[in-house]
Amino acid sequence: RSSYSITLLPGDGIGPEVVDVAKDVLFVAGAKEGVELRFQEMLMGGAALDAVGVPLPDETLAAARASDGILLGAIGGYKWDNNEKHLKPETGLLDIRSGLGVFANLRPVTVFPQLVDASPLKKEVAEGVDIMVVRELTGGIYFGKPRGFGTNDKGEETGFNTEIYSVSEIDRIARVAFEVARKRGGKLCSVDKANVLEASMLWRKRVTAIASEFPDVELSHMFVDNAAMQLVRNPKQFDTIVTNNIFGDILSDEASMITGSIGMLSSASVGESGPGLFEPIHGSAPDIAGQDKANPLATILSAAMLLKYGLGVKNAAKRIETAVTQTLDNGFRTGDIYSPGATLVGCKRMGKEVLKAL
Amino acid sequence: RSSYSITLLPGDGIGPEVVDVAKDVLFVAGAKEGVELRFQEMLMGGAALDAVGVPLPDETLAAARASDGILLGAIGGYKWDNNEKHLKPETGLLDIRSGLGVFANLRPVTVFPQLVDASPLKKEVAEGVDIMVVRELTGGIYFGKPRGFGTNDKGEETGFNTEIYSVSEIDRIARVAFEVARKRGGKLCSVDKANVLEASMLWRKRVTAIASEFPDVELSHMFVDNAAMQLVRNPKQFDTIVTNNIFGDILSDEASMITGSIGMLSSASVGESGPGLFEPIHGSAPDIAGQDKANPLATILSAAMLLKYGLGVKNAAKRIETAVTQTLDNGFRTGDIYSPGATLVGCKRMGKEVLKAL
Ligand SMILES: CC(C)[C@H](C(=O)O)[C@@H](O)C(=O)O
Ligand SMILES: CC(C)[C@H](C(=O)O)[C@@H](O)C(=O)O
Repeated sequence: RSSYSITLLPGDGIGPEVVDVAKDVLFVAGAKEGVELRFQEMLMGGAALDAVGVPLPDETLAAARASDGILLGAIGGYKWDNNEKHLKPETGLLDIRSGLGVFANLRPVTVFPQLVDASPLKKEVAEGVDIMVVRELTGGIYFGKPRGFGTNDKGEETGFNTEIYSVSEIDRIARVAFEVARKRGGKLCSVDKANVLEASMLWRKRVTAIASEFPDVELSHMFVDNAAMQLVRNPKQFDTIVTNNIFGDILSDEASMITGSIGMLSSASVGESGPGLFEPIHGSAPDIAGQDKANPLATILSAAMLLKYGLGVKNAAKRIETAVTQTLDNGFRTGDIYSPGATLVGCKRMGKEVLKAL
Repeated sequence: RSSYSITLLPGDGIGPEVVDVAKDVLFVAGAKEGVELRFQEMLMGGAALDAVGVPLPDETLAAARASDGILLGAIGGYKWDNNEKHLKPETGLLDIRSGLGVFANLRPVTVFPQLVDASPLKKEVAEGVDIMVVRELTGGIYFGKPRGFGTNDKGEETGFNTEIYSVSEIDRIARVAFEVARKRGGKLCSVDKANVLEASMLWRKRVTAIASEFPDVELSHMFVDNAAMQLVRNPKQFDTIVTNNIFGDILSDEASMITGSIGMLSSASVGESGPGLFEPIHGSAPDIAGQDKANPLATILSAAMLLKYGLGVKNAAKRIETAVTQTLDNGFRTGDIYSPGATLVGCKRMGKEVLKAL
């Protein structure tokens, strides 16, 4: 096949700006490999709340499902922060993840050599870090039931959630993680809290069981508190990490900050079948929205992940990655990754430079 | 009162070595302020498992309850890692926390000026960091019910836990945190995941309500994933942090690694009344156990917290803190904090140097 339809979900804050720029890069990179991409833009997050009163309109989910890949900008903003749960932009994000069944969230954490000085960590600690965090995305405490508010036996109000994993949920994410580790450094570290939580005990048991299908991958286990320490102490010890939804949320954000340039980091969420969801890991940054200051590279690199993991057009993905590297080598920087001596550019100009390098 | 009884729980690995050294320092510091301390040593953790088959013998809990303060070394080790839950050393720790009702865990995260180079963070990021993490310790997903293993409607095995907080549980930890923040920099950051979890929504609501009792403290809220990032990006932005049991476990360990010297970090766990539990935040380090290599300073500083928060003998606590500073200024270092030019010493010798400085 050489023609694909892509759903664009610009979302809120800087989302529309970065998606706009990334779309052009995606289109050109595809074309260079003989792939035609058609785009349709749909409402999601706060933008959808404002326009039609729900964070994930049915048409958006239907269109996303019917397409070959989804590129999301960012969602959320102060404006909707105090909304009730079903009217939060975040709920739209959780619903689309769950609605698409994209249970595996891949978050590469790479320190770009050109940007190593931006890391809060010492150069010798940060340099060369190259981790893939595989986060379970459609289970655990994010979706577990029962959840809600109740009254305890003293008559007091309570708030509660359920952390729950089943064998098949663990097995499928473990298999994805082992596959990923196999194609990388061959080392997988599974992170849990099996010294306290039953959900983690089952996690550890199943990940260990699945390991026998991947004798070429070296498996280790780490408690989540220790992992949070080790990521700061010596991130280079990690190759691929697999963990549950909430620990993955925390650890992947911590890991991303190690790079000092979260404006550069992309993510892919994929399921057994159907289209994947690709998005930068940064948020909607309402403070700089609409000012042409955002760094579009994370979204551009998410577009590369869409080509690679979503459509299987690896060469087009490679083209984008090379163009981004070259643009950095050429000295172009948005404000978030600027350092003296570089050429400070805005979001649009950064996109143009990547297109030139393509 | 000028006479107190202290329960010592040496535990496993390096626990006995560091408690032994800290006991002497505690005794002398007390004596200098006219306080007599009596010690009784009890079994806990793996040591108790090996001796009597349970991780927390009834006599240990009873003795601890009847005493004025408890100093714990460390528990756990590879040997017991695959034990069933009720036979894990960690279960003993959770049971004593819960049995004593010590719901507030205070973890100071301080970068010692003498040790700033040990931090994996750049000097300008690490230097001057001084955070107090207040972690809820007897609630949340660690203790919530239902928990266990089950079968879902597809007939598959599941593992599950319950994250649950009641109004009074949140209110009391919030009050402790506001009190702590008031005596420090006057800034409290409450960390939750209120954009997803109902338990966190109630947390945020109650912390916000309690804030009205502390108009002099500036309250902010942060999502846990962002907090994990901000601790690496710019830890100096934090004064006091309050959070739930599991987030506190992860974030306080992450924060401790910022200092680069977790062998220096102490903790206090206190309840409404009754004796507090004081322990270093490091683990049992089985690899170096029995070799006189462990850094006793975290346990010595935990003894200082026992004097200050447990017995209210602030001057004696101050004496210990000053003696530790002076010992560092004198250039003595155990292996974990050693850097060229310093005098490398073992656990016992470090204790002697602190005693000298006392
Ligand atoms: C916005 C929020 C619901 C989301 C999450 O917690 O999954 C975000 O933090 C992420 O990691 O994509
Ligand atoms: C040993 C373990 C049960 C414990 C915890 O998770 O609370 C430890 O990590 C801690 O932080 O004191």
